[in-house]
Amino acid sequence: MIIIGEKINGSIPVVAEAIAKRDEAFIKARAKQQAEAGANYIDCCASVSGPGEVDALKWLIDCIQDVTDLPICLDSPSPEALLAAYPFCKRPGIINSVSMEGDKIDQIFPAIADSKWQVVCLLSGKEGIPKTAADRLKVFDQIMAKAKEYGIRPERLHIDPLVEMLCTSENGIETNTTVIRTIREQYPQIHITAAVSNISFNLPARKYLNLGFVVLAMNAGLDSGILDPTNRDMMGLIYAAEALLGEDDYCMEYIGAYREGLFGTAKA
Amino acid sequence: MIIIGEKINGSIPVVAEAIAKRDEAFIKARAKQQAEAGANYIDCCASVSGPGEVDALKWLIDCIQDVTDLPICLDSPSPEALLAAYPFCKRPGIINSVSMEGDKIDQIFPAIADSKWQVVCLLSGKEGIPKTAADRLKVFDQIMAKAKEYGIRPERLHIDPLVEMLCTSENGIETNTTVIRTIREQYPQIHITAAVSNISFNLPARKYLNLGFVVLAMNAGLDSGILDPTNRDMMGLIYAAEALLGEDDYCMEYIGAYREGLFGTAKA
Repeated sequence: MIIIGEKINGSIPVVAEAIAKRDEAFIKARAKQQAEAGANYIDCCASVSGPGEVDALKWLIDCIQDVTDLPICLDSPSPEALLAAYPFCKRPGIINSVSMEGDKIDQIFPAIADSKWQVVCLLSGKEGIPKTAADRLKVFDQIMAKAKEYGIRPERLHIDPLVEMLCTSENGIETNTTVIRTIREQYPQIHITAAVSNISFNLPARKYLNLGFVVLAMNAGLDSGILDPTNRDMMGLIYAAEALLGEDDYCMEYIGAYREGLFGTAKA
Repeated sequence: MIIIGEKINGSIPVVAEAIAKRDEAFIKARAKQQAEAGANYIDCCASVSGPGEVDALKWLIDCIQDVTDLPICLDSPSPEALLAAYPFCKRPGIINSVSMEGDKIDQIFPAIADSKWQVVCLLSGKEGIPKTAADRLKVFDQIMAKAKEYGIRPERLHIDPLVEMLCTSENGIETNTTVIRTIREQYPQIHITAAVSNISFNLPARKYLNLGFVVLAMNAGLDSGILDPTNRDMMGLIYAAEALLGEDDYCMEYIGAYREGLFGTAKA
């Protein structure tokens, strides 16, 4: 499982405050905690609109790169901001995100085509987020056609099936698992990711829904997740799911991660 | 999900001690805790061998029935003890268990055929526990032939696919999920159960493996489990899995169980 640490995001009030104050110590501590907790990428979202965004992103990138060698997942709704900021990253990471809405994909794909950058691709189309799995898969086909056009191979894409609130769903997460399973069968090498905690918006005891979602999505083919790596229950359940799904012979990875202290306690 | 509370079992040292001392308060407290935590049945296993077992079972049954109206899951390796003890139960529960080993099934099935008792059926055969899913399914077919012979309908059976230690497995829980999925497709009304914590024997941080197993087994078709209902994380994840799997429209059951206090805290 590829873990994209979600904790440096300006939509989180304490992070917004740190960005506004340019509180380096706060951002560096969050980057370091996530690296130590087992993240593979550090998501970096300023949530600043307008001309200040690129400055904020550059400052965040510098803070993160001061404390960890992990690559950055550069997160913005603005293709201009993404394209202006990604050259500040010392090593190729992940652009977060494109979709078939607007012309974002036609700006981002050609710009990073010849690099080693990866891209999160949301399955939303010209008319927003399709309701059915079949319609999301149509958007997926459009994205894959664009990727082919620009020569970007499937292993550089993290497809996000778009996780919506469970509380308004009538069929649980079937739309998501159908989309994930279908894409995984077609493209064994592609990455499939999700912003996990969206599932539990407006519900109590959110952690159980987040944990259950990850296990079921991994069973369908999810291999990447935007989540909080410092949540030790989440990390423990991800390692457990890999072992249960037969991706960890004799539980060696599970035991190794436990010994590294990524989850559990001596008595867990 | 049908929750069979596992905490009154003489294989647990403190329970063995309570049985030896006939410590009513201890057993009653365990029965009450499990009932309050959301159990649907209370498993009752003396783990006493020889002539003392029936006395111990009768005493346990009386203790349990003094504090709760929940039906009992009567648990013994001895068909004679099961048949001697089940009439002490005030209401029909579950006999735990039969299999195709020995003649246990030919003793138990005819005895309870005309009652409302249910039966846990382990998928082990004349030569013990079959290694492959295909061979376990052959044992399942033999059990269903016996059930038909004695006129016991599928909804009175809790099929146990036999959960083994993950640490010695090379394909995760695929054998279990294949067996569960195949049986669920054939018999929508049958119950499929598992002694959940067996999955994590000899591994650290067992709780994550137990939680992940339940979610994946429920996804395959498990609808019954022998587990610790006082484990609030387990109960939370079971309710979450039901909602995620589309068995709980608008999460009403999840929210209800949370409000009843079966899992979570105000801040979870």
